[in-house]
Amino acid sequence: KTPTTVEHAADDYELGGHTDFMRKEMTEQPEAIARALRGRLDERFATAHLGGLGLDPMALRAIKRVKFLGCGSAYYAGQMGAALVEELARVPADAEPASEYRYRNPVVDPDALYVAVSQSGETIDTLAAVQELRRKGGRVIGAVNVVGSAIARECGSGVFLHAGPEVSVASTKALTNMTVSFAMLALLLGRVRDLSAAAGTRVVTGLRALPGQVERVLADDAEIARIAKRYAHARHMFFLGRVRGWPVAREGAQKLKEISYIHAEAYQSAELKHGPLALVDAEMPSVVIVPADDLVAKNIGTIEQVKARGGPVIAVTNADLPDGLADEVIRVPRGEPELDPILLTIPLQLLAYHTATALGRDIDKPRNLAKSVTVE
Amino acid sequence: KTPTTVEHAADDYELGGHTDFMRKEMTEQPEAIARALRGRLDERFATAHLGGLGLDPMALRAIKRVKFLGCGSAYYAGQMGAALVEELARVPADAEPASEYRYRNPVVDPDALYVAVSQSGETIDTLAAVQELRRKGGRVIGAVNVVGSAIARECGSGVFLHAGPEVSVASTKALTNMTVSFAMLALLLGRVRDLSAAAGTRVVTGLRALPGQVERVLADDAEIARIAKRYAHARHMFFLGRVRGWPVAREGAQKLKEISYIHAEAYQSAELKHGPLALVDAEMPSVVIVPADDLVAKNIGTIEQVKARGGPVIAVTNADLPDGLADEVIRVPRGEPELDPILLTIPLQLLAYHTATALGRDIDKPRNLAKSVTVE
Repeated sequence: KTPTTVEHAADDYELGGHTDFMRKEMTEQPEAIARALRGRLDERFATAHLGGLGLDPMALRAIKRVKFLGCGSAYYAGQMGAALVEELARVPADAEPASEYRYRNPVVDPDALYVAVSQSGETIDTLAAVQELRRKGGRVIGAVNVVGSAIARECGSGVFLHAGPEVSVASTKALTNMTVSFAMLALLLGRVRDLSAAAGTRVVTGLRALPGQVERVLADDAEIARIAKRYAHARHMFFLGRVRGWPVAREGAQKLKEISYIHAEAYQSAELKHGPLALVDAEMPSVVIVPADDLVAKNIGTIEQVKARGGPVIAVTNADLPDGLADEVIRVPRGEPELDPILLTIPLQLLAYHTATALGRDIDKPRNLAKSVTVE
Repeated sequence: KTPTTVEHAADDYELGGHTDFMRKEMTEQPEAIARALRGRLDERFATAHLGGLGLDPMALRAIKRVKFLGCGSAYYAGQMGAALVEELARVPADAEPASEYRYRNPVVDPDALYVAVSQSGETIDTLAAVQELRRKGGRVIGAVNVVGSAIARECGSGVFLHAGPEVSVASTKALTNMTVSFAMLALLLGRVRDLSAAAGTRVVTGLRALPGQVERVLADDAEIARIAKRYAHARHMFFLGRVRGWPVAREGAQKLKEISYIHAEAYQSAELKHGPLALVDAEMPSVVIVPADDLVAKNIGTIEQVKARGGPVIAVTNADLPDGLADEVIRVPRGEPELDPILLTIPLQLLAYHTATALGRDIDKPRNLAKSVTVE
């Protein structure tokens, strides 16, 4: 078992000049990412060191599937993790809400690696899923922020997120560190398989660049605040994405819903025509996630479909979109394509934040919600 | 290859006294189900005959996973199918939107059975997913209503749905026959594995009972119309379910959205506390799906959570709920638990139908939508 060092500064639970904890925690993301990466990237072998996993290369090779289990944003982060694992390691992977998994009497695969994702490490449904898995001989690791928490103890191995204490109900830095950790896990699983050293180096370099890139997105604060204010009156919004953009859209919709109480719903872009397009009109803005990948043309088509029905469009992208296509464009830096979901999520935090602020919501304590769901 | 007989009556494309095709097609469901079952249930060996699959018992045994691919309602039907396969055959199964699958460069598993689900057999994303699978050596079968359609031809084997022609954009009888067909596929996969003859007989009996049970749900039309009218003013609704109730909730939300343009969204019940509960108030009714299974107490808890925030609740159930718990209760007959999703979906068709009628919508031609999405 590898000892873990957790760094808590004295001011972790104080606002320190910020208006609220969500703002503070968003701002802390560059340093939180740097902390998650520290000592875990191996430039020489172009891989990651995750000693807490307790899995040697042969055990890593034996993994035939990966399943991420979590609740709320941790589940969406798991979706991003599954995509990273399948892309980098070519190991089939998916994510499932822990609450569904624990109750549906799932077939437990002895060759799978299960990853229990929870900021607090106390989420009741995720803990119950871990216990079910362990009773059935499943191999489960934790992806947890709070050291010594119930899920961390029950799993006995895993990846600590090192995001530092998170106070705001709406998770930002812990969520970012989940996906950063999953990228490292995917890199590790890839490098014991067919991912080349050159490709591994590309991912390592991409991870190293993240703190600076997140800093640049955060610097776009005023512009995103302006856009948020413009659409804050909306009663409904769609968040649309495909493939790498899809879990980003889900997390963006969830965050907006949580703190602004706007009814935001995420859809796979191609699913629009199979139902939700009936709702699109001038009163229903859509946030469309457009990663700079080979689906840009498809995503432009999605934006045109929404526009043709009079729906306003906010594009969140690191691709080059035609001028005047979307009503608003939020740009993020271009990095390694597999890591795009991490960066594309950041402006959606700001969008939710500023929308909630414009509506006068209590940012850190949204109604009806608790930080950690520890009772059923 | 087994020849397939398709029965088209002369009046299939005529309303025949009905006000619209959706109404007509909902009414036809008992006979459509009977047609799907005809000649396919084997009482003696308590299994199903699906000759069109082209898979002998050894080939059926060799299947290690099942994945359903479809768009819109066909994807939700695939979710119900995946649950049936995992429950009855203990073969891990899941569903994925065909549009995501085709574009994300998935790992194709040579030991998996892929099921392409499409009423028309012409859905472009599903067809593309089939083509991708075939190029990568995946074993893919069709679950298609229209004989001779592109997906049926590309797959070359599969299960025809025998729902008869479906005209309404909102799918009802084809969707029901998808899940009925998946129940037979799950029964077949189960009976070549560990599902006992006694358990198989239970499922066969349950399937035989379906047409009569659906008839009874349809007879509840006036009561469901009353409930629909009461909540037709809502701008937003949640549809909540867990495990067997979850794909039912998804399909119910989709149907309401499609034809009434109310912003209905489905959530796994346990996910409520992880975000969406922030939106619940007196203006946001929730439809809660409560199958008569061992999760009734959990679902009662969900109803209480929504009520505690002032949210109106419509329960759709075949369980015994405490009096006065929900504002409205829509009851369906009790059958075999694994088949509950099929029956629980029927009243949600009527709920969507009567809501759209109360709002004066064009039932058969909802705005912005086409019956089959054959272009991207």
